[in-house]
Amino acid sequence: MTAELVDAVLAGSRRALARLLTRIENGEPGTQEALADLFPHTGHATVIGITGAPGTGKSTLVNALAGAFRAEDRTVGIIAVDPTSPFSGGAILGDRIRMQDRSGDPGVFIRSMATRGSLGGLARAVWDAIRVMDAAGFDVILVETVGAGQSEVDIVRVAHTTVVVEAPGLGDDVQAIKAGILEIADVLVVNKADRGGASSTVRALKAMLELGHPLARSRLMGQYEAAHHLAASPVAADIPDATWVPPLIQTIATSEDSGKSGITELVHAIASHKRFLVDSGLMAVLEAQRIQLEVYERLQSELMRRFIHALPAERVQTVVMQVRARTLDPQQAVFALLDTVGEGN
Amino acid sequence: MTAELVDAVLAGSRRALARLLTRIENGEPGTQEALADLFPHTGHATVIGITGAPGTGKSTLVNALAGAFRAEDRTVGIIAVDPTSPFSGGAILGDRIRMQDRSGDPGVFIRSMATRGSLGGLARAVWDAIRVMDAAGFDVILVETVGAGQSEVDIVRVAHTTVVVEAPGLGDDVQAIKAGILEIADVLVVNKADRGGASSTVRALKAMLELGHPLARSRLMGQYEAAHHLAASPVAADIPDATWVPPLIQTIATSEDSGKSGITELVHAIASHKRFLVDSGLMAVLEAQRIQLEVYERLQSELMRRFIHALPAERVQTVVMQVRARTLDPQQAVFALLDTVGEGN
Repeated sequence: MTAELVDAVLAGSRRALARLLTRIENGEPGTQEALADLFPHTGHATVIGITGAPGTGKSTLVNALAGAFRAEDRTVGIIAVDPTSPFSGGAILGDRIRMQDRSGDPGVFIRSMATRGSLGGLARAVWDAIRVMDAAGFDVILVETVGAGQSEVDIVRVAHTTVVVEAPGLGDDVQAIKAGILEIADVLVVNKADRGGASSTVRALKAMLELGHPLARSRLMGQYEAAHHLAASPVAADIPDATWVPPLIQTIATSEDSGKSGITELVHAIASHKRFLVDSGLMAVLEAQRIQLEVYERLQSELMRRFIHALPAERVQTVVMQVRARTLDPQQAVFALLDTVGEGN
Repeated sequence: MTAELVDAVLAGSRRALARLLTRIENGEPGTQEALADLFPHTGHATVIGITGAPGTGKSTLVNALAGAFRAEDRTVGIIAVDPTSPFSGGAILGDRIRMQDRSGDPGVFIRSMATRGSLGGLARAVWDAIRVMDAAGFDVILVETVGAGQSEVDIVRVAHTTVVVEAPGLGDDVQAIKAGILEIADVLVVNKADRGGASSTVRALKAMLELGHPLARSRLMGQYEAAHHLAASPVAADIPDATWVPPLIQTIATSEDSGKSGITELVHAIASHKRFLVDSGLMAVLEAQRIQLEVYERLQSELMRRFIHALPAERVQTVVMQVRARTLDPQQAVFALLDTVGEGN
């Protein structure tokens, strides 16, 4: 059944694609096998992340971008990552309705996904969906995330190019979040450029960019190592000495074609960034880092799964109660558990 | 040196507290030992999380809440978790200036912390800071987080009571984020209740609450297990069958005392929630879950650290290159690494 579905996805069936994505999102059995079968067919799509603070008009911009790629005759997969409704468990953004523009076009496939698992931010399901769309042969995959936080940082891990969308005239808190995600921008967009305050937003962003833009991606692996107390990875040492200053593009993304502005420039900026990655050798390094990160995360899950399997459940409860009573601290509790399974030292 | 600092913190020195928090934030050596020494002195503070979408006036509300607790003669520690500036590495919210109101009062201690490590959302440093303030004897610890995403979910893990702040008249994207974090609310606040649209915001929230409010906290451990493919924990099975419907409080938090409204009601709601937790037995269960989660995370880090230590670095590179060449899929790579260290099966 899964094998047939995989074959149908590879043959270009949109129905099979939709069904497989649903299965992945629901964590149904057989999906890991399907992903393994599809894996050899991946690695061809250009993955573009579109992210930004609330109210910046990301969905409309994604729609406009999709139109521009279609005009170049490239097929487009869109993954819109939504906050999850706490009650239905489903995605809740009415926003998606705007994307229906493209729904008559067989060269565009749109998928809304909910960030169901709060642990891990951009859910594993989203990564898997990108891989499936890649195997299904889409030339470009646009991943849109809403909000600010973990998902924006995670997007750097899957996207070749990350577009950070800003807009003039948002509040102070939003400004702060914007600054927090500037770091991940390969291309900066000031959308709604016809709004009052656009020129001061552009000025402020330019000033920040002139302060220097560290190549955040090269630190991906470093972050993971720091977070998990690991030694520096050999792969991370190979970062070529190349610098990319994120271009700042002003756009007006409206649903009417006549009102649009800056979209062509944005498409060019994205293409330039990809050329930079390839020419500098960074593309290869980033792909290796990304793979290492994924392998490490899967390894960590597997190690934990095996350890917990070997550990008597009562032992966990005993140790937790000792920590609650403050007779053990949490790190001592870890050593006590390692001792139980005979891995003390 | 660290031992002296710990003694000084326990003796109530604010300077020592500030220095230790800085050391923790910088990940300086000796901080793990300091935390272990402080651990037996923790468990007395009431930890309250204040979270919400951008623009809801959280900082001003935190300030007003601190004032109300001070009026009851309770000491207050405030941790304001800020997005990190990508360039300075420091916290960037001008917002904090508003909190200076309280800075003359020795019964209030304010700390801004940056969510430096993007992996893991609310950084480990924040948890550690809560623990230090708890050991230092603060009666109430208010943890304010900005934005939406991982940090809001993480706050549930450390706070006894999570207050979700809403405000009328925010945009559509923000509405969506609001819905996403409603799930974690123990107490719901509609701040800026004097603004236009307040009554419709209240109506909308009430309608959502009436749809049923799952007790999100009881699913904390379940989420972790699902995310890490673990078996169900024994502790999570003990959830008492108790229901809490989050009260909805309308507030006006301004910097002038005369304009304030609803703050007393909010303090009462927080106290009722704590009483509910204690009376129902949920407090004990939640504390056990929280400890188990922390022990599991530390255990996972430790297992990974040991495994990577035993693994030849060239082996990692070889496997990564095989995945890049699509001759191994990422999960097969994990099994290959386990084989290397003699843990295949």
